[in-house]
Amino acid sequence: MRLESGTSVIMRVEMDKQAVTFGELVSLIGQQGGDIVAIDVIQPGRKTEIRDLTVSVAEPSVIGSLSDAVKAMKGIHLVNVSDRTFLLHLGGKIQVRSKVPIKNRDDLSRVYTPGVANVCLAIRDDVNKSHSLTIRRNTVAVVSDGTAVLGLGDIGPHAAMPVMEGKAMLFKELAGVDAFPICLDTKDTEEIIAIVKALAPTFGGINLEDISSPRCFEIERRLKEELDIPVFHDDQHGTAVVLLAGLINALKIVDKSISDIKVVVCGVGAAGFACSRMLLAAGVSRLIGVDKCGAIHRDERYDNEAWNEFARLTNPDNEKGSLSEVIAGADVFIGLSRPKLLSNADVRSMNADPIVFAMANPDPEITPDEAGDAVRVFATGRSDYPNQLNNVLAFPGIFRGALDARARTISESMKLAAAHAIASIVTPEELNEEYIIPSVFNDKVVPAVRRAVVQEAIGSGVARKVPSDFRNLD
Amino acid sequence: MRLESGTSVIMRVEMDKQAVTFGELVSLIGQQGGDIVAIDVIQPGRKTEIRDLTVSVAEPSVIGSLSDAVKAMKGIHLVNVSDRTFLLHLGGKIQVRSKVPIKNRDDLSRVYTPGVANVCLAIRDDVNKSHSLTIRRNTVAVVSDGTAVLGLGDIGPHAAMPVMEGKAMLFKELAGVDAFPICLDTKDTEEIIAIVKALAPTFGGINLEDISSPRCFEIERRLKEELDIPVFHDDQHGTAVVLLAGLINALKIVDKSISDIKVVVCGVGAAGFACSRMLLAAGVSRLIGVDKCGAIHRDERYDNEAWNEFARLTNPDNEKGSLSEVIAGADVFIGLSRPKLLSNADVRSMNADPIVFAMANPDPEITPDEAGDAVRVFATGRSDYPNQLNNVLAFPGIFRGALDARARTISESMKLAAAHAIASIVTPEELNEEYIIPSVFNDKVVPAVRRAVVQEAIGSGVARKVPSDFRNLD
Repeated sequence: MRLESGTSVIMRVEMDKQAVTFGELVSLIGQQGGDIVAIDVIQPGRKTEIRDLTVSVAEPSVIGSLSDAVKAMKGIHLVNVSDRTFLLHLGGKIQVRSKVPIKNRDDLSRVYTPGVANVCLAIRDDVNKSHSLTIRRNTVAVVSDGTAVLGLGDIGPHAAMPVMEGKAMLFKELAGVDAFPICLDTKDTEEIIAIVKALAPTFGGINLEDISSPRCFEIERRLKEELDIPVFHDDQHGTAVVLLAGLINALKIVDKSISDIKVVVCGVGAAGFACSRMLLAAGVSRLIGVDKCGAIHRDERYDNEAWNEFARLTNPDNEKGSLSEVIAGADVFIGLSRPKLLSNADVRSMNADPIVFAMANPDPEITPDEAGDAVRVFATGRSDYPNQLNNVLAFPGIFRGALDARARTISESMKLAAAHAIASIVTPEELNEEYIIPSVFNDKVVPAVRRAVVQEAIGSGVARKVPSDFRNLD
Repeated sequence: MRLESGTSVIMRVEMDKQAVTFGELVSLIGQQGGDIVAIDVIQPGRKTEIRDLTVSVAEPSVIGSLSDAVKAMKGIHLVNVSDRTFLLHLGGKIQVRSKVPIKNRDDLSRVYTPGVANVCLAIRDDVNKSHSLTIRRNTVAVVSDGTAVLGLGDIGPHAAMPVMEGKAMLFKELAGVDAFPICLDTKDTEEIIAIVKALAPTFGGINLEDISSPRCFEIERRLKEELDIPVFHDDQHGTAVVLLAGLINALKIVDKSISDIKVVVCGVGAAGFACSRMLLAAGVSRLIGVDKCGAIHRDERYDNEAWNEFARLTNPDNEKGSLSEVIAGADVFIGLSRPKLLSNADVRSMNADPIVFAMANPDPEITPDEAGDAVRVFATGRSDYPNQLNNVLAFPGIFRGALDARARTISESMKLAAAHAIASIVTPEELNEEYIIPSVFNDKVVPAVRRAVVQEAIGSGVARKVPSDFRNLD
């Protein structure tokens, strides 16, 4: 169990008061390097008592031996030891709240029978009214099957829930979107598609999350085709939007045009493909994808059908070879692969002022230390280096805008608009090698992304509603 | 559009200020019987302006002509007219809230990456932990396909949402349960079963709602078999629990024993069957079901397979004939059918001190007026007569108890316990012909039902957890 620095843990102990005194327990904890900072009596009793002891320790490493010593003490049963992260998760991180109270018969008759019947009939007569008269207006499903969760892989739908709850919190805290986690106990592509389609009457948008490749492509493609609400696989498109935002600003620093640069994308999975599409849409023409097989080109026939399509779209000069070979002369390296794939020598073979976005999780394709001063602009997915490219910058504002415009879909042009909006938050005066992308806590991000997404949705005819702040009557 | 008494409506008007003055509009509304009590400028403008006018009217009947007059006025566009019930539904009635804020990097690292990973792994290693470390501990899905909504019938999943949202509000307001509406865009029994099974990792319980018969039987039966969390079709079992609660108290008034009475259940659909099962479990032996075909008996072979099973379980004397025939000598009439099926003469043919629970919605099988003084104890599903048998009395406390005990199922004995708990809220001193059942706003109901359900869950081995207030260490 990993603990935060400056750790305190909470020990729940059941004491047999005839066999041990509380003073003896306190002494033992002190001897083992623990300091009791709070005591809560959970279950008082004459003979047996349960207490929660908040114990502060200087070093997380102490906790193991401390727990063992408490466990071994006569008359003490150590029920459990919890760290703050676990305690925070007890009972989950989100709740469902009524918007209005039900205090009396009059309230009840309005929110439930008989008054609700008129609202139901209005929607039956015009199903579009479900977007205004139900939670659809502001509610997104965060759907996962738990097959590709964070760096953890296929941990299953139950274990994926804390991540999806966390995502729902971010939706609400950053953009006021009501999001509800839906973790599905199936990995079958067709079944997932059928389920999400069946769930659609409840939601105004679908955020797909942590579904493994290649199933995620088919699931997203089909749902986009068959539903009239936005469907967005965040691992692909959220990442793509934020990468492009970072690239837009990085190119300003090195004073290069997006249409001139050579980009190498390392790792052509779900995110790599989506980022490549986005970069092509943004004007990149010389883009080469590299995966285990080396550079993806048109003279090869790949088992992975996505790579054949990728080869058709990219690599205009049909370059072949290893990463080290094709990286030569490149302006930009984008890594969505594995740690340590890029060497200092690789970087040194790049064009002048190389841009390296090393996004492998948790350890990047090359660390800033290894890259040294060879890289001009360096970004990762991590919060402990400068320039964190975090898709928390994208999805809250994108869905806020899509819901407000009642968009049928989230189009490529809406994503491009979102990327430019994120990039625009960093002013020319602020922009430098170590600050190409705003913080996820910068409160200008969501309004700017929303505005850009709404504008583009209206302009491209995807919007079914014009939000009041976009109406100009005169 | 039906409006509440003492009605006010909100008219959204777009005014062309060059063609009409606001004073002219006010005059017109006054002439038509409306009184403007509030004005909100929604969209100011130099030439055109949008305002919301709250207009009070003495009689709802005025609204039609008033709206028509406003519509006809030159320079005025009447955007819409909303009553308070509709306004209350704008954007839906529930929201998702974070339990803790995300204000900084430290918060983020605890509720989301990287801290959340440890919580995920703990659940991966022991899936039971999902009941404590995610929202499952307190969260129920309210699942419907919109095929049998209130008295409205098959209005579809979109139109069913306001009811399911209302239900979610009741769960939260009355019992602190987080409930989320799931309206499914499919009527296929197998698909509904597959979907709910796939959704189970997110929820601690499943409340099935407004699913038409006979599909609801198969759906509930299979889900109960195949899931290890409570599955409860409220239209069947909530109604059954509350009816039994009412009957327990009604029998006290007439001083009859449940094992001696003859009961006629009129309407053997989902609710009628469930109520009959509950009454049999509670000790009724002479129970006769009546439907369109008359009394259900064992000499007939029915197309409706449920009726064949019903015939095996009930009607020990194998009575035959119409409702009017078999009601003779009955002690209790339970109607879950259609308005006006029971006549005054029918009631007069019943045994002394007849008990009539006429639950047809919205109009009962017999009104109190028609029944006159022939009935000793009379109850309906309506709030405007005494003795409202409303399943809002049952489901919040039943799920509160089931979640707190982490029950695998809601068993027949837990439902019986719930019925007795509801009945027990009416004290012997309070009990009389017009007060056999507590109000849905009586705050003793949920705690009493919860306690009874938890106790029974523990006693019968269905509980997987003993709530702290049921632990006694000494």
